[in-house]
Amino acid sequence: MDLSDIYGPIQGDLDEVERSLEVVADVDFPLLAELLEYALRNGGKRIRPSLTLLCGKAGNYDLSLLVPMATAVELLHTATLVHDDIVDHSAIRRGKPAVSLAWGENRALLLGDYLFSKAGSLAASTGNLRAIKLFSQALMTISGGELQQTAVDFDLDQARDHYYRWIGAKTACLFSTAAESGGILGQCPEDTIGAMREYGYNFGMAFQIVDDVLDFVGDESEVGKPVGSDLSEGTVTLPSILFAESHPGDNLIEMVIGSRDAESVALAVEKIRNSPAIGECLAIASDFSSRASQAIEKLPDNAPRQSLLDLAAYIVRRRK
Amino acid sequence: MDLSDIYGPIQGDLDEVERSLEVVADVDFPLLAELLEYALRNGGKRIRPSLTLLCGKAGNYDLSLLVPMATAVELLHTATLVHDDIVDHSAIRRGKPAVSLAWGENRALLLGDYLFSKAGSLAASTGNLRAIKLFSQALMTISGGELQQTAVDFDLDQARDHYYRWIGAKTACLFSTAAESGGILGQCPEDTIGAMREYGYNFGMAFQIVDDVLDFVGDESEVGKPVGSDLSEGTVTLPSILFAESHPGDNLIEMVIGSRDAESVALAVEKIRNSPAIGECLAIASDFSSRASQAIEKLPDNAPRQSLLDLAAYIVRRRK
Repeated sequence: MDLSDIYGPIQGDLDEVERSLEVVADVDFPLLAELLEYALRNGGKRIRPSLTLLCGKAGNYDLSLLVPMATAVELLHTATLVHDDIVDHSAIRRGKPAVSLAWGENRALLLGDYLFSKAGSLAASTGNLRAIKLFSQALMTISGGELQQTAVDFDLDQARDHYYRWIGAKTACLFSTAAESGGILGQCPEDTIGAMREYGYNFGMAFQIVDDVLDFVGDESEVGKPVGSDLSEGTVTLPSILFAESHPGDNLIEMVIGSRDAESVALAVEKIRNSPAIGECLAIASDFSSRASQAIEKLPDNAPRQSLLDLAAYIVRRRK
Repeated sequence: MDLSDIYGPIQGDLDEVERSLEVVADVDFPLLAELLEYALRNGGKRIRPSLTLLCGKAGNYDLSLLVPMATAVELLHTATLVHDDIVDHSAIRRGKPAVSLAWGENRALLLGDYLFSKAGSLAASTGNLRAIKLFSQALMTISGGELQQTAVDFDLDQARDHYYRWIGAKTACLFSTAAESGGILGQCPEDTIGAMREYGYNFGMAFQIVDDVLDFVGDESEVGKPVGSDLSEGTVTLPSILFAESHPGDNLIEMVIGSRDAESVALAVEKIRNSPAIGECLAIASDFSSRASQAIEKLPDNAPRQSLLDLAAYIVRRRK
């Protein structure tokens, strides 16, 4: 089952989100229009907006509110990618040069700011104060978490805790916001909204862990960026942490993030990708995915709920 | 008459804004707290929040709404400064190292993002949809304008128009938002809100022109950054434009922004600061300042209106 099957109950509405993204890029300033087009036509899987729409299906399904919010969620996501690629000095994003490489870091910075504000503006256009407040909290959590992460030194004893807190802020929070805002705008009962929040959070944790696994074992042409990017940037993710935990005498990770030379990165990637750490990470991701599914157990048994369940299963087995 | 006299009718409430900024900096993450403290305790004149409060005085003066909005306006301003200093590679801001220099560009970028989102969150906390929408538009205008400006090549024929459009987006828009949001939250009549918007816009135009003049003639210890910063960054502002307009045969400006070597920048600054262009710029700034004052002519004649008039006069004669 691929994404287009899963998206079935909302495919037409997801196309509306796509058109809404095109409208965002249709501005008077030629440079801004070109940059928006470049950043938004990125071949993204649009998983976050699909969560907003699918969760909206559980309540009063009003596309005049859900499409702007789903668009806002995708814009906020894109903004964080554009800024992340500056911070990480990334060259490649989804198989093409990162905005910061293609257009320079200054323009990437300003484009990210514009995307943030456009996202906020679209969220505000729903007129739903609870959804607006939730949305504005999301960027605080993401940027605050990323900032704090810059102060974290690798310490194996605390590495897992730090990692979970970090990906909770940088990734799970926005999935949670995407899902919860669908429930809020659908005027769902409080326990349903809570279930969506929990679904989104656990979904996001699973999603990020799989992302971090794919950085080791993925096919470069599918993932859209070089394998081993994280370690070469000195970023320690769950596969490295589990590997280090099971090799207490081996200070491979400390050495690699200390030196970051291509040869030792390649050696470490090779060791980790062939270690049991990969399977263990996927088991942990599956566990988060199951928690996501359990969270929406009590939602009415219908096609959108089935899509949410299928999506939670899909993200664990995906290859890109 | 200095700022503390002008702030008279709202000084106590401006102190509330200051306390609210301290609360913003009081977060659990030690690094984030330190960065917020550094960026927000910046000796700023707090002119933008004062506009929000003074305009609020024309209506239903509810500090539970005005203080969060005034704080949001100051946070948004601070966020744009932090990001600007990355873009411009500025070393000094208000007499101390720029955040990007003191803490690195990555942390400055993430701090700016956090400040934007915290600003949005405070604006949202007013629960006033019109004010929230206005506020989210402001950042779009600012970042979109700055982005477009990166594509502008110096062309004397269009230089004035470009300059006015640019400072309209980067500076006047936020002053306009600061003033207008005070009127909106004060539930003022529509024509009053319109007057505040116009006041703020013209005030901001005057403010920026004076800023750009001070970059040539200011006292470095008062302005808090080196004289001639703009030209040395290749930024052409009104004094340079008026100088070039009155010296049609002299391609000094093109040469300086082409080479940007310290010697030619110093020579150009010297020429411009001793030219009539400075006086002409200040006359234009006075004109914008008068338009600001005229805009609020029909507001009730009371102490807050007097402060708005005094402030419009103050910003033209200020030395820092």
